[in-house]
Amino acid sequence: MRDNYVRIFDTTLRDGEQSPGATMTSAEKLEVARALARLGVDIIEAGFPAASPDDLEAVRRIAVEVGNPDDGTRPPVICGLARANRNDIDKAWAAVQHAARPRIHTFLATSEIHMQHKLKMTRLQVVERVREMVAHARSLCADVEFSPEDAGRSDPEFLYEVLGVAIQAGATTLNIPDTVGYTLPDEFGTLIAGILQNTPGIEACIISVHCHDDLGLATANALAGIRAGARQAEVTINGIGERAGNTALEEVVMSLATRPNQFELTTGIDTTQISRVSKLVSNYTGIVVQPNKAVVGANAFAHEAGIHQDGMLKHNQTYEIMRPETVGVSVSKLVLGKHSGRHALKARLVSMGYFLEEAETDKLFERFKALADKKKTITDADLEALISDELYQPREMFALEGLQVACGTMGMPTASVRLRDPWGKQHVQASIGTGPVDATYKAIDAIVQVPNVLQEFVVHAVTEGIDALGEVTVRIQAEQPSLVLDAQSEVDQPRTFGGYGADTDIVVASAKAYLSAVNKMLVAMGQYGPVEIAATETVGRVSLPGRSSGHG
Amino acid sequence: MRDNYVRIFDTTLRDGEQSPGATMTSAEKLEVARALARLGVDIIEAGFPAASPDDLEAVRRIAVEVGNPDDGTRPPVICGLARANRNDIDKAWAAVQHAARPRIHTFLATSEIHMQHKLKMTRLQVVERVREMVAHARSLCADVEFSPEDAGRSDPEFLYEVLGVAIQAGATTLNIPDTVGYTLPDEFGTLIAGILQNTPGIEACIISVHCHDDLGLATANALAGIRAGARQAEVTINGIGERAGNTALEEVVMSLATRPNQFELTTGIDTTQISRVSKLVSNYTGIVVQPNKAVVGANAFAHEAGIHQDGMLKHNQTYEIMRPETVGVSVSKLVLGKHSGRHALKARLVSMGYFLEEAETDKLFERFKALADKKKTITDADLEALISDELYQPREMFALEGLQVACGTMGMPTASVRLRDPWGKQHVQASIGTGPVDATYKAIDAIVQVPNVLQEFVVHAVTEGIDALGEVTVRIQAEQPSLVLDAQSEVDQPRTFGGYGADTDIVVASAKAYLSAVNKMLVAMGQYGPVEIAATETVGRVSLPGRSSGHG
Repeated sequence: MRDNYVRIFDTTLRDGEQSPGATMTSAEKLEVARALARLGVDIIEAGFPAASPDDLEAVRRIAVEVGNPDDGTRPPVICGLARANRNDIDKAWAAVQHAARPRIHTFLATSEIHMQHKLKMTRLQVVERVREMVAHARSLCADVEFSPEDAGRSDPEFLYEVLGVAIQAGATTLNIPDTVGYTLPDEFGTLIAGILQNTPGIEACIISVHCHDDLGLATANALAGIRAGARQAEVTINGIGERAGNTALEEVVMSLATRPNQFELTTGIDTTQISRVSKLVSNYTGIVVQPNKAVVGANAFAHEAGIHQDGMLKHNQTYEIMRPETVGVSVSKLVLGKHSGRHALKARLVSMGYFLEEAETDKLFERFKALADKKKTITDADLEALISDELYQPREMFALEGLQVACGTMGMPTASVRLRDPWGKQHVQASIGTGPVDATYKAIDAIVQVPNVLQEFVVHAVTEGIDALGEVTVRIQAEQPSLVLDAQSEVDQPRTFGGYGADTDIVVASAKAYLSAVNKMLVAMGQYGPVEIAATETVGRVSLPGRSSGHG
Repeated sequence: MRDNYVRIFDTTLRDGEQSPGATMTSAEKLEVARALARLGVDIIEAGFPAASPDDLEAVRRIAVEVGNPDDGTRPPVICGLARANRNDIDKAWAAVQHAARPRIHTFLATSEIHMQHKLKMTRLQVVERVREMVAHARSLCADVEFSPEDAGRSDPEFLYEVLGVAIQAGATTLNIPDTVGYTLPDEFGTLIAGILQNTPGIEACIISVHCHDDLGLATANALAGIRAGARQAEVTINGIGERAGNTALEEVVMSLATRPNQFELTTGIDTTQISRVSKLVSNYTGIVVQPNKAVVGANAFAHEAGIHQDGMLKHNQTYEIMRPETVGVSVSKLVLGKHSGRHALKARLVSMGYFLEEAETDKLFERFKALADKKKTITDADLEALISDELYQPREMFALEGLQVACGTMGMPTASVRLRDPWGKQHVQASIGTGPVDATYKAIDAIVQVPNVLQEFVVHAVTEGIDALGEVTVRIQAEQPSLVLDAQSEVDQPRTFGGYGADTDIVVASAKAYLSAVNKMLVAMGQYGPVEIAATETVGRVSLPGRSSGHG
């Protein structure tokens, strides 16, 4: 029954979003889901609807808008995660049922250590719960996936039993997670082969692999499982996820594509979209990709980018096993300049795969002209940064109207900030800080007045040359954090918020990124900050360092 | 004859340094070599001495200073790379012979594609060259390693023949490289097993594995080779290297350590040093480690770092297969404050593994007090950033004496810079740029007058809170780049220079990082810039954007 098609199940929006700080807004999640659909993934795990009403709504929107394409193409399956209880399963169904092809994914741990310390359940209780909950899910939805959590450390004989019960109860896909990234490729392949051989009823189901990278073996383990007969791989873009992350979509897909004779397996992925989706997810989550990351790192195809590239290689394949074009890395870098018109911009965007509304194109063209005044050549990377900065920002609560900064080795870095609040009022504040960014953030805090802790701050130049756009990603957490339920540890975890900004001035980009994170935090907290902000206009109060600040 | 000890051959300073921009100064290389010796690596591949006189000298210094410890401990083997020709081998020997335990590592490609397109040699010619050059190396040095380049794509039968000849000629270690990261774990394990079975004389030699991560499989391939009988692994810290990089030391070592029953193999690595060496290499090379990197990523042990950590896990091992302490991640974060004295600082440094000279401790204490005035608590990460910024800087050509910057949304970001040149003269310049960093760099350029292209620019906060130190790493390349010979492609490649700076003001840190890269470039170019710099003092000329600048 094993066909030669490997289904790509992307869990960037669920397991990937569980990485510290990877929290995305509903709008960002929707955009990522659209990109995943264009990429050709078979199943999108859109979230964990029971975590919070916001999470449910985000999954529902994706089910409605990405799970029902109006262009006649076959939509991806939209999947929601649920622990093995009625409430979770009902909420998952409430969210995904709007998709043309919905799936409920439920799980229960089967390793001794998890059953004993986390679940406090006996083997018998686990078997009964699985039977009951998979049956309940199946009563709602024809497509049900079941995962025995921590399968990598479970007793194989017990696994066969639990999986057999899940199949009897109606599961159609059985996912085998190496939850803690503990197994070695041979072990994991043997586990999958054993399951295929010993589980009653397995021939009618799809086996799936779900690996973690704690020992750097996630891709090898997933491939070993696929070789042993698994036909679904659970992956994330850039391999993001808790701890060392999940199997990277791009590594599994490109391994299968680069070694066709070894695998004789195909996927539905349009590999030329890989580079763009990687960048999108990195921007939205604020999780950087290291230069030496396989397939999507900045140096992965370094031989191509070098100034002395011609003549450097006597034959392409001497040191290259994939062509950069295959994964959508644009080889020609210079695209547009100061004199390029709106039409040229639009044509370039379309060829890059962006289909924008007229109003969006107008906005972007304005930014493009401003940038072209400062910078001789505008590259695809510049355009992507502008798109992220301009179009995919959260609903604006506070808007940056002006910023003025003085800093240097003489001390007393000072920032003056003017913001417009949600009611249209202007606020001005000045502050001193330990540096220009600290001063700016303290001035913003003095207006917004919702204390938070800055957890991460990264700036990088988009292209070569320091006159390039600087991209800033930040991650903050409220001092009184809103909590979100973690599906696996079953504990409420503090929510963190990422923000993104791009500008040729990195202090301005830092202000934008921070404000975008703060705005997300305010939306999530369901408040616009203390009411008095709207009532009074505060101008000119100087905030001194040493005051009780949310930072640090 | 196979023992159960896996030799760790670290090539961070050779293959790792070939990553774009990873160029280190001799002082930095020496510091990394010292750290590798403390880490317990068995062999340090210190460089490619034939690349340039500077490279030879750097390897020689490491051979002298790290290859001959004065404390009675067994020193690591110091190894130099050489192509299979007399000149390279003689230069490698000239550099490594000063070590107590020297090694020459020579290589020649054996795959059809390399022999045909790169070497333009027949199989017979390759065999004869190997015989001759390995014998020559062995006439100089008792410890000779030979690598058949691109072994992963070579005809196994031909490999057995070439390796047999190398053994006859005196090779003691045979390294099997998957040069282009093409093989799958099963394939690579089979290749190693085949070599062990079919190569005449192999039982007296050590087999080594050298894998690349183009498909994300470097660690799995190395482990498959080790399982098949290899007893040396060639690795780099953080997995840096050309394209997607090499096998990561930390992943191989921690896989062996975490799954002892699967491997029954040991290494000589003190795993508690891993985190510190990872940070050192990241700082010196400017190559960031992504948060979801196995073992050394910021999130690898995220469960530990969370604010709500207590109660989050019902049992440590539920979601954790390694303890963070095992790899030297400090669990207690707060260490020192404003009132800590010199003694407390010194004690903390010693416990972190730093043994500084008195004068260095004095310098560091000064910086520590200045930082403690701005920031409530000083963490280990802060101290490491200060050490990198203060102690391991290149020989100073131009020194930053003052910087003043104004920027914001109003436009015309302006920087005034005061530098002291190598002859002690002060120079002042002001410049306008597209942002504060661009303006600063243009002002520095106006003084130094050696045009260059900024290739990479990254800032990140050292610890939580934006009042934290900001670390900046940059990478530049001269417009007229000095070239360095690449051992494998045999082509001169442009040299790039990394710089590092840390300050609470990211614009100041950016200036320091840029100046440190510029100083490295000047040293490498063997010049201090145009002579007239020394003769005249230029003050106050405003440099306008749009002038012919080296940037972008």
